[in-house]
Amino acid sequence: MTSAPPSAARAFAGGMWSFGRIIDRYATDGYGPEVGTLRTIELAAASGELVGLDLNYPFDPGVSVAEVKAALDAHGLVATNITPVVYDRRFRSGSFTAPDAATRAAARELAEEAVQVAADLGARYVKFWPGQDGYDYPFQVDYATLRRHAVEGVRDVARNHPDVTFAIEYKLKEPRNRLFWSTATASLLAIEQMGVDNVGLVVDFGHSLFAKENPAEALTLAHSMGRLVDIELDDNYREWDDDLTAGALHLVETLEFLHVTREIGWSEPLKLDLFPYREDPTDAVRESVATLRALEDRASHLDLDRLRAAQADHDAMTAQRLVRAALLGA
Amino acid sequence: MTSAPPSAARAFAGGMWSFGRIIDRYATDGYGPEVGTLRTIELAAASGELVGLDLNYPFDPGVSVAEVKAALDAHGLVATNITPVVYDRRFRSGSFTAPDAATRAAARELAEEAVQVAADLGARYVKFWPGQDGYDYPFQVDYATLRRHAVEGVRDVARNHPDVTFAIEYKLKEPRNRLFWSTATASLLAIEQMGVDNVGLVVDFGHSLFAKENPAEALTLAHSMGRLVDIELDDNYREWDDDLTAGALHLVETLEFLHVTREIGWSEPLKLDLFPYREDPTDAVRESVATLRALEDRASHLDLDRLRAAQADHDAMTAQRLVRAALLGA
Amino acid sequence: MTSAPPSAARAFAGGMWSFGRIIDRYATDGYGPEVGTLRTIELAAASGELVGLDLNYPFDPGVSVAEVKAALDAHGLVATNITPVVYDRRFRSGSFTAPDAATRAAARELAEEAVQVAADLGARYVKFWPGQDGYDYPFQVDYATLRRHAVEGVRDVARNHPDVTFAIEYKLKEPRNRLFWSTATASLLAIEQMGVDNVGLVVDFGHSLFAKENPAEALTLAHSMGRLVDIELDDNYREWDDDLTAGALHLVETLEFLHVTREIGWSEPLKLDLFPYREDPTDAVRESVATLRALEDRASHLDLDRLRAAQADHDAMTAQRLVRAALLGA
Amino acid sequence: MTSAPPSAARAFAGGMWSFGRIIDRYATDGYGPEVGTLRTIELAAASGELVGLDLNYPFDPGVSVAEVKAALDAHGLVATNITPVVYDRRFRSGSFTAPDAATRAAARELAEEAVQVAADLGARYVKFWPGQDGYDYPFQVDYATLRRHAVEGVRDVARNHPDVTFAIEYKLKEPRNRLFWSTATASLLAIEQMGVDNVGLVVDFGHSLFAKENPAEALTLAHSMGRLVDIELDDNYREWDDDLTAGALHLVETLEFLHVTREIGWSEPLKLDLFPYREDPTDAVRESVATLRALEDRASHLDLDRLRAAQADHDAMTAQRLVRAALLGA
Repeated sequence: MTSAPPSAARAFAGGMWSFGRIIDRYATDGYGPEVGTLRTIELAAASGELVGLDLNYPFDPGVSVAEVKAALDAHGLVATNITPVVYDRRFRSGSFTAPDAATRAAARELAEEAVQVAADLGARYVKFWPGQDGYDYPFQVDYATLRRHAVEGVRDVARNHPDVTFAIEYKLKEPRNRLFWSTATASLLAIEQMGVDNVGLVVDFGHSLFAKENPAEALTLAHSMGRLVDIELDDNYREWDDDLTAGALHLVETLEFLHVTREIGWSEPLKLDLFPYREDPTDAVRESVATLRALEDRASHLDLDRLRAAQADHDAMTAQRLVRAALLGA
Repeated sequence: MTSAPPSAARAFAGGMWSFGRIIDRYATDGYGPEVGTLRTIELAAASGELVGLDLNYPFDPGVSVAEVKAALDAHGLVATNITPVVYDRRFRSGSFTAPDAATRAAARELAEEAVQVAADLGARYVKFWPGQDGYDYPFQVDYATLRRHAVEGVRDVARNHPDVTFAIEYKLKEPRNRLFWSTATASLLAIEQMGVDNVGLVVDFGHSLFAKENPAEALTLAHSMGRLVDIELDDNYREWDDDLTAGALHLVETLEFLHVTREIGWSEPLKLDLFPYREDPTDAVRESVATLRALEDRASHLDLDRLRAAQADHDAMTAQRLVRAALLGA
Repeated sequence: MTSAPPSAARAFAGGMWSFGRIIDRYATDGYGPEVGTLRTIELAAASGELVGLDLNYPFDPGVSVAEVKAALDAHGLVATNITPVVYDRRFRSGSFTAPDAATRAAARELAEEAVQVAADLGARYVKFWPGQDGYDYPFQVDYATLRRHAVEGVRDVARNHPDVTFAIEYKLKEPRNRLFWSTATASLLAIEQMGVDNVGLVVDFGHSLFAKENPAEALTLAHSMGRLVDIELDDNYREWDDDLTAGALHLVETLEFLHVTREIGWSEPLKLDLFPYREDPTDAVRESVATLRALEDRASHLDLDRLRAAQADHDAMTAQRLVRAALLGA
Repeated sequence: MTSAPPSAARAFAGGMWSFGRIIDRYATDGYGPEVGTLRTIELAAASGELVGLDLNYPFDPGVSVAEVKAALDAHGLVATNITPVVYDRRFRSGSFTAPDAATRAAARELAEEAVQVAADLGARYVKFWPGQDGYDYPFQVDYATLRRHAVEGVRDVARNHPDVTFAIEYKLKEPRNRLFWSTATASLLAIEQMGVDNVGLVVDFGHSLFAKENPAEALTLAHSMGRLVDIELDDNYREWDDDLTAGALHLVETLEFLHVTREIGWSEPLKLDLFPYREDPTDAVRESVATLRALEDRASHLDLDRLRAAQADHDAMTAQRLVRAALLGA
């Protein structure tokens, strides 16, 4: 039996939003107290499980990049990437695709700032999650114009910085009912049409799941096209971006996802994208990491020779048996 | 041809939340500025289309019941019902089903206050939407206990006020991933088990739709059991409580829903449950009302004799033809 | 630590359809060759994992009840229940709810025959799965009439045989777009309205899952009302009745489901409801049984004292940790 | 006000399967009697509404291409396209992506035959709907291999016939739980990677809807890339390929879809993809055509100047008002 070589100890990263105050349209007073930028860094570090953070920008008013850098350094954390907040009130009708030119320009300006902050903090890439770029009603937009704005907005920023890596995190919906960057293939097709080399994809397990994809297949495709920039983990009920702890529900598909990260030799920290509305964020991070570590260990026990033979035959029952042996030891 | 007699002019009501500041987990600075309790009443009145309002309680700090009453009176509006806010931060882990007795007691106290406010404002009923009563993860709760708390909480309040009407608005999920009061039949079954006469159901078209019900069937059932207390209208993509304008997407099913309101002689104002994140709320109300008025007019053109004959035969094609004739005149 | 006592060796049953020729609307020539009634019994026995079979009635033309009994006896199998085929061409527009009285009468006659066959074969109950009782289009049926027929049809048969147990297997849809017996609560409510003691529910894990229920919660409710007659296992992608092998996708929710069967002391064989279109049915049964045995073993390792304490607090993170410990030993 | 010029009278086509015997996994004796190839042509013609047919190939045993041609001619119908049946028992584990080379070769051979039949019958294109190309379980296949086979299979046939038009009809699932040609963008991306000019897309309204796309957006994209080969119409509940009559549920989105066909100057017959399990197929075709004609008429009443202005502003409420004016005259 051939199984994969033991991976070097896997590292994990997180999103700073997991440690901040979460709010929604009903608990408008928030699920907890306000948490400032620097405090989220402290909390993330205190979890004891993370080596890096996905940082939203702008930071809290009055907090400088230098202060953030100092806080990260003090806690031994890196900024994995900077995510400009192109989805708050100012951008409620769109960022790169906003109907008015001034807002589209504001999105680009914020993106440019994010590039600088990423450089200052030594982040690996700048992430765009244009969560307001889309529409809600039939007949609301002209689809060709929306597409042109979506593609050009990212392309122009990317061209300004050919040495910087950019990534788009796709999601089927929320907060818009229909987002432009909706699925892996919708995004890869648009990125190909963009004609630049330095824009890729963040494949978020949960986003992929509720977009009715198989996350492992989406990951394989993005990697094969040289467009995989980062990976995020979480879980949901296949209909919405619930952002539950990793492995809470879909152990088999999470295992397959991790198996693909081994196959492609993914060496970056695995990033968690959690919204622990009612849970302590440290608990949610630890629970996710413990589950993912256990699953990575189990993935290392897959009998790869037999699995490949079964896959060559599309033999689902043998594949299931091998998965069961690795996962449940039974 | 027999068609239904012309209804008296249909009146409409709204939810005060449609006119307030909407916020979500991404646009945490809100989709618009803060709007106070009294201002929402002004705005609702200014739409020119509403006769009543579903009022969340508590009101803004410092706003008295008398002031609200005066504002309603000044604008010729009634309070259709009072909805205690049993889903904000205090109740984030549940209201009537909260794990701790103190929070459960707080929910009952707030409900008692709402009963008093409803009396003061002459509202027809008190509505419970226990949007935090449920759970998020498998194994999180003991289902029997959750059920007991959910049923007893409402039952006890209802028994305290046998002359007051109470209604439960069910929803499949959000903000919890799984809500106890999830579907029409789940709620009717629990209400029956409650053993009181003064608790019924609010059937919200959109909630019913995304709970994978046919709203017209749910409405028929609630009415036949004598449990229909109120009706709300909106629309969505069948997967989430999008709270789009009424008739935005599902004209045929909205028409059927309105047809049932005619058949059962529903004479209360039809209430709108809208979340116009990026739209002017007055526009959203007017657009909904105009669509519903048009559909009510079309419903009055249904050839009821032929429709009933077709339904007796389960003859979908004839039924569709009659619907098309009424709806599109073709 | 208190964990549940070791269960007596769990037995499994199956549906005879898993061993027969499967067909669908595209592969109209079937996914395999024809398999006769008696041969399905042989195949089920040859799996070596099943003690009983859910038998569709009528059997193949020319096959007598005595022959079936002999075949079952010869292979050491029991008939767990008889399921009259009230969903083939004759009943394509409904069985108990068919628009014409003659078809409704035919459904009752077939049900009566099934009662006799169940008696002859010593089956524990008669199962109704009225898969054509429902509708496809808005406006197609009068909902009150549909409901009356659905309830009366089953009630009358049940009243004729007060000593016989009947069960309804609910499913949200397929082959009709909307089935009357759609969810656990819809069915329990209608059964309560029926006013008989000898009609209960079959809770099928997969049906519950794609009806947007949590299967463990549905199981708890049906049992608490004294209406749980049987349990079926399978898996799917939460949107359709895919009838995949048990535990193929939703290990955590399957574990919770099995945990509830332990809590309620369920001692009947667990029945598999599989449609192995492209797989060998014996492989699919063995794979399901092996997974379920492994999960039952893991369920026995749950630390019940701590789990109950966590559930009393609605403490999802602790519950997840206990589940992980039991399931992954990590 | 500028509205679109009156279209030349719109023609309609159908799928021969709508007139044949429909079967599913429950009514294995079929929803009606057997209907032979030539009889489906007669029935399609007798509907009085169709000018063309999508023809599955092979025909019934013993029916020659010449006989089919004669039947079409006799009834004044054309073959819009030929659809080789690459999804019956022989191809149950895949056609172009089957694990064994012999089956893959058989799929190509059948495709080659279909090219010849299309030429013989003067069909505009050959359609591939590889409904068994995909998988059912996690870990079942190697995604890179599946993709390579899917793309190469179609590419090689297309290269053999550079003057023939080919089209892929995508669908998210069924009969496989996961199909390779799943969404518009997944398919367009794979077609681009194919590197041939003569392969495009069939956009089926219902497939697009339940793939969680907005059909009008998918249509716009396929056309803008020069890859739109044909259009099909039907309706469903957004979760499955229900193949209900066109416009049965989603009038607004069907209107928008038809609006796009006008905008892009689509002049081919609109093809219906219906599965009237329990309905007379002629009724289903006539009902669909009557609804689509009514909607095309309504689309011609859209105030295009104002609509474009509203869309430039992403002004959903104005767009909805214009749609209501056109659709309901209110």
